[in-house]
Amino acid sequence: MAKNELFQYSIMSALMDGVASHGIPIASMLTHGDHGLGTFKHMVGEMIVLDGVVYQMKSDGTVVPLDAASLATTITPFASVTRFQPTHTARATITGKEGLSNLLTRLMPTAKNHFLAIRIDGVFSTIHVRTAGGQLEPREKLPAVGNRQTTHTFENARGTIIGFRTPQYMMGINVAGDHLHFISDDRERGGHILAFESEGEVDVGVALLSNFHLELPTEDEEFNEAALVLDAKGIHAIEG
Amino acid sequence: MAKNELFQYSIMSALMDGVASHGIPIASMLTHGDHGLGTFKHMVGEMIVLDGVVYQMKSDGTVVPLDAASLATTITPFASVTRFQPTHTARATITGKEGLSNLLTRLMPTAKNHFLAIRIDGVFSTIHVRTAGGQLEPREKLPAVGNRQTTHTFENARGTIIGFRTPQYMMGINVAGDHLHFISDDRERGGHILAFESEGEVDVGVALLSNFHLELPTEDEEFNEAALVLDAKGIHAIEG
Repeated sequence: MAKNELFQYSIMSALMDGVASHGIPIASMLTHGDHGLGTFKHMVGEMIVLDGVVYQMKSDGTVVPLDAASLATTITPFASVTRFQPTHTARATITGKEGLSNLLTRLMPTAKNHFLAIRIDGVFSTIHVRTAGGQLEPREKLPAVGNRQTTHTFENARGTIIGFRTPQYMMGINVAGDHLHFISDDRERGGHILAFESEGEVDVGVALLSNFHLELPTEDEEFNEAALVLDAKGIHAIEG
Repeated sequence: MAKNELFQYSIMSALMDGVASHGIPIASMLTHGDHGLGTFKHMVGEMIVLDGVVYQMKSDGTVVPLDAASLATTITPFASVTRFQPTHTARATITGKEGLSNLLTRLMPTAKNHFLAIRIDGVFSTIHVRTAGGQLEPREKLPAVGNRQTTHTFENARGTIIGFRTPQYMMGINVAGDHLHFISDDRERGGHILAFESEGEVDVGVALLSNFHLELPTEDEEFNEAALVLDAKGIHAIEG
């Protein structure tokens, strides 16, 4: 896949419906990109893909990089990745997700109907994250899994935020709006970002992704049988 | 692109919003598939792609195959194509779009959440089609264009139906449900199918498409500025 094209496996509505028992090997996902996010079998933890390395951020607070053997045997039921090459960069102080949203709109004023890939490096005065602990049983829905999520707040944390902006008309296929995961420089802390503020200026890189490659699950009874009805409010509540 | 993968340029909600002044050359579209449907600049007519040949079916009833020069200079603002290789075939009598829908469900019982490519060859006792005449001005919306569409009814027509089934969760990206275009064997009649019945048994070929490649317009102010709010009822009315 060329640079700045988006690859996605499965759809957000499937995850909402609890479709998370099957998927593609992480090694296969990595052939499509080196930058991205997702989750793991049975939604155990949050995935962040940073410079081609895949980390599993678990609800007990631990962060595990996947080694070569794990890449072949671990699967993802939902992930988005790209070969990231920023086309627009800025150094900016970011006050919350709304501040980031405003910055992205200033950097890419005509991109509201496009996907963006995002990377932010620097020190964050506060970062509030959640990590999903996983399904108690197959087909347990994401909102129920989310009810048991663990949250952590990190202060003065140096690290990297990786994420995507998804256009509104893609709600249900992915999460409309900005979807961000964080990992610290020491690779010991991280999760799905609920809120954050930068400590002074941080480095922001962005690229517009106009080619979207979606691989849908096959030979997956859970996916085939799921209702996949759009629950925009539910997705915003759990992923927004 | 491999066989039975789906390539699409732009999204149905953009066409609903009247985004049809720009697009990709038909020649570029053909690099992704030899079977499909779509429309042309300013929605002038219906496109059908049959065995790699692109036909423009106009509202005056004429059907024009695009020659090599036209393929390079003619653009499409919206199209879906695949390299079709049927995996399931049947000979069946088809009574209407509902009859086809039931047949597809019998042939592919676990595919409700997937795209299907469809081809039907044979004699049709009646085929009712519409052809869009085109926008009177840029950004005129599809429902307004559709209000002036021409309809034709063909009887005992031998020809080919080309189409796609799109899963419900893709409504707005494409047209959820079965979207079919027809062209006669003599290549002199055709259009977007509103209703049809086969004359006895016809040949049906189907394939499941689990990889969806979406190219979004870039450098297209109409697309960038469009609201692209889902109007499912409107899409069903004009394209269903």
